Amino acid sequence: MSDGAQVQKPTVTARRLGLFTQHDVIVVMRRDCPVCRSEGLSPRAHVRLTARGREVYATLYQVDDLIGPHDAALSEEAWQLLGVEEGDPIEVTHAPSLASMSSVRRRIYGARLRPEEIDIIVRDVAHGRYSPIHLTAFLTATSALPFDEAETVALTRSMVDVGDRLTWDSPLVVDKHSVGGLPGNRTTPIIVAILAANGLVIPKTSSRAITSPAGTADTMETLAPVALDVPAMRRVVEQEGGCIVWGGAMRLSPADDIFIRIERVLDIDTEGQLIASVLSKKVAAGSNHVIFDLPVGPTAKVRSPEAAEHLAERLEAVAARFDVAARCVLTDGLQPVGRGIGPALEAREVLAVLQRTADAPMDLRRRACLLAGAALELAKAAPQGQGIRMAEATIDDGRAWAKFQRICEAQGGLRTPPVAPLQAPILAQGPGRVTGINNRRVSTLAKLAGAPDAKAAGLRMNVRLGDEVAPGEPLMVVHAETQGELDYALDYAARHPDMIDVTP
Amino acid sequence: MSDGAQVQKPTVTARRLGLFTQHDVIVVMRRDCPVCRSEGLSPRAHVRLTARGREVYATLYQVDDLIGPHDAALSEEAWQLLGVEEGDPIEVTHAPSLASMSSVRRRIYGARLRPEEIDIIVRDVAHGRYSPIHLTAFLTATSALPFDEAETVALTRSMVDVGDRLTWDSPLVVDKHSVGGLPGNRTTPIIVAILAANGLVIPKTSSRAITSPAGTADTMETLAPVALDVPAMRRVVEQEGGCIVWGGAMRLSPADDIFIRIERVLDIDTEGQLIASVLSKKVAAGSNHVIFDLPVGPTAKVRSPEAAEHLAERLEAVAARFDVAARCVLTDGLQPVGRGIGPALEAREVLAVLQRTADAPMDLRRRACLLAGAALELAKAAPQGQGIRMAEATIDDGRAWAKFQRICEAQGGLRTPPVAPLQAPILAQGPGRVTGINNRRVSTLAKLAGAPDAKAAGLRMNVRLGDEVAPGEPLMVVHAETQGELDYALDYAARHPDMIDVTP
Repeated sequence: MSDGAQVQKPTVTARRLGLFTQHDVIVVMRRDCPVCRSEGLSPRAHVRLTARGREVYATLYQVDDLIGPHDAALSEEAWQLLGVEEGDPIEVTHAPSLASMSSVRRRIYGARLRPEEIDIIVRDVAHGRYSPIHLTAFLTATSALPFDEAETVALTRSMVDVGDRLTWDSPLVVDKHSVGGLPGNRTTPIIVAILAANGLVIPKTSSRAITSPAGTADTMETLAPVALDVPAMRRVVEQEGGCIVWGGAMRLSPADDIFIRIERVLDIDTEGQLIASVLSKKVAAGSNHVIFDLPVGPTAKVRSPEAAEHLAERLEAVAARFDVAARCVLTDGLQPVGRGIGPALEAREVLAVLQRTADAPMDLRRRACLLAGAALELAKAAPQGQGIRMAEATIDDGRAWAKFQRICEAQGGLRTPPVAPLQAPILAQGPGRVTGINNRRVSTLAKLAGAPDAKAAGLRMNVRLGDEVAPGEPLMVVHAETQGELDYALDYAARHPDMIDVTP
Repeated sequence: MSDGAQVQKPTVTARRLGLFTQHDVIVVMRRDCPVCRSEGLSPRAHVRLTARGREVYATLYQVDDLIGPHDAALSEEAWQLLGVEEGDPIEVTHAPSLASMSSVRRRIYGARLRPEEIDIIVRDVAHGRYSPIHLTAFLTATSALPFDEAETVALTRSMVDVGDRLTWDSPLVVDKHSVGGLPGNRTTPIIVAILAANGLVIPKTSSRAITSPAGTADTMETLAPVALDVPAMRRVVEQEGGCIVWGGAMRLSPADDIFIRIERVLDIDTEGQLIASVLSKKVAAGSNHVIFDLPVGPTAKVRSPEAAEHLAERLEAVAARFDVAARCVLTDGLQPVGRGIGPALEAREVLAVLQRTADAPMDLRRRACLLAGAALELAKAAPQGQGIRMAEATIDDGRAWAKFQRICEAQGGLRTPPVAPLQAPILAQGPGRVTGINNRRVSTLAKLAGAPDAKAAGLRMNVRLGDEVAPGEPLMVVHAETQGELDYALDYAARHPDMIDVTP
């Protein structure tokens, strides 16, 4: 009936606008642009840009001047994704209607998704066809009526399939993941150093923070470059047995990276989404032996031992579907780990543990050895019950620190974490004993201070559960890079004195 | 602990960027702007702009040139909302953290919301503090686990309270509302004319399309101005007894207008949201006798008589909590009403019914009289069982047409609906009888053709259920204002031949 799809569309001219929008893909065109007029494009239209065989979905904004009537001025994100050069022709049309949103709507109304429906959704997401509104609807709907196991398996598989996959010569590839929610829980660099020093292969890809003040990649970035591509990562692993790199620079489960941006804004991360997110990254990274750290506490992500058992069971069951041997270790999630919260503040404590300095936080060391020990046992590199001791010995004899330095050098050079120029204490109001620490509020405070984007920002805890404090004694010290963020964090602290419970 | 909140913030200078973004509130600043640096503001930060005692929440984008280092360049929406003039000082800070999102998160995880939580959410929404992501999460969560009656009542009340309320001298104020989903169901202008001609007070405020190709306001706008403010609307009602104006130009349930923008993108509109949306507008408009038209059909919004009964019961119960006498009329929702779908195409049929021309669609006339009759009876202006006859008589003796013309004149002058420059038929593939019409696909087709933004766009149905057709006979004619939209619509029609079932 129509040959509309075959019509050669008139093009507009690529212009680099130099507009920084984080991940928003924006194109600006004139209201009197002939293509806008013939296509019936109005402000905020969802459009498809095609150039050099690539296609990108963008939000259209319009102007009456500033650019020429035949120009398409692209935000930096749009410019990078489309890979054009100044003056290239671009075809601009309405984005095709998103058929997979009808699956999302059915899911909103309580229907379960079939694997093939999930597959189309994940493909559309990975190709940038879902706007933040569409992404939010999918994530919220699958949080309100959580994914069942079949959906979780299907989501994991689709998320793996839509990206790249790494393969390794070693038949045994180890990995480790902490379920978030516990500030300062920065064991990964220590564990990688221990395991690699013991001859295991652990090509660790980490994410940046989702809802926390620091992801492993954020922390590690203050110690060494982490944005390695796959060949560079492979060189590091072949040379040292392990690495700690940012997974976002690769295309391992790219849909996950897109989901995470929205989960971060909403501060939600449900069981099914969490499992698919974590396992898709592990499977894509080629891991087959994985240790999961599940901190349990009333203000951690996993709030009760029962919830932890349920998550562990589901995680191990879904992992088995992908031939991954997973073991979950339930850990203490009552209070932050170590003292520092924020990328650089946590990185300094990683160094302290590896270097065995006098001020090294012993709880961080214990956790790292517990998890490294479990991994050594899972990989049969240590006899059952001997894993922790082997891990501790690897730190104590300096092999872990030596290995960590070599890994950092191989990743591009060991760095010194920055120190925040602005620091201000939060003082105890009255005397008493510390009886509770709200991990969520502490995380929020560190984020308001600028973490994780401001690497030096965050806070340092001066107290732990059970400590006695006197009035006017500092409970913690906020670190910030700018006065605005410091003010903002201190204002939040003043409004939430229940962040640290001091019982007289 | 901090006096951060009292610190006098340095300001930036208001610049009008001339950027058309529909409802997106955007501010563009330099990356090296001192305020961005001191506040730690990065691209896509959610910021609060304060000027002249007003505050507006905006998304920050950044540039390296184009504007001065002390400039804050505002999108048109931001410019209007903030009400500044070129060169005014603006204070820019991080948006405060949204405490009410923790209620939304609890709701996502299945907890019910208390009235006071709903109230804070609605206030935050009405003040523009919710981003599209936050709004989507709230709407999706309350669709997946639908609002119960207590939540629906609380939402309705909060949505009324956060806006303005109209009051009328008449103790009896009538209103009418059709639950959407049925293309071409344009009875409102006819009903208002009939009721006002019979001495009832019906100050009708209508919305623009939510998910349909034409809202009543969109259609009416092709016949007369509809963007009246409250004093202008009051003059029309005092003079003529009725009006048909766009409610969005008033502040009646302003949160509803914000929710609707997102529902439109997602194409969702659940029972609780629908009831709160509709009733908050009616209560705010001062109506106390309301007739609801509930079209029922497999591809209408209400799909079964059972679902309609449930909705009717809930609607009437919630209405009673606000002292509104509501009556629901279940109507045939099997196929579009009349022939035209789209603002101008529907407006011409409204005129045909009122003017009693030979080609007036009788189904549109019957529906309007059925609903007007129910309203006359509910308002005790007609004896029980006599309403329809009284309504028909009001059309037949020309009083409805005379009243309609006077209302249009009072609103600013009767207009002639535009005719689309481009028209193309969709042809029957083979011979047979029309056994099904998919309302949703027909609506989508009309929207792809440009409706409702392109007033003349949409389509005209040439067949109704039961009609015999020959191969090559036009089933419908697509109307468009631009070639791009026509192509786009025809392409969709080609891919969905099941839009109209022709059974040999």
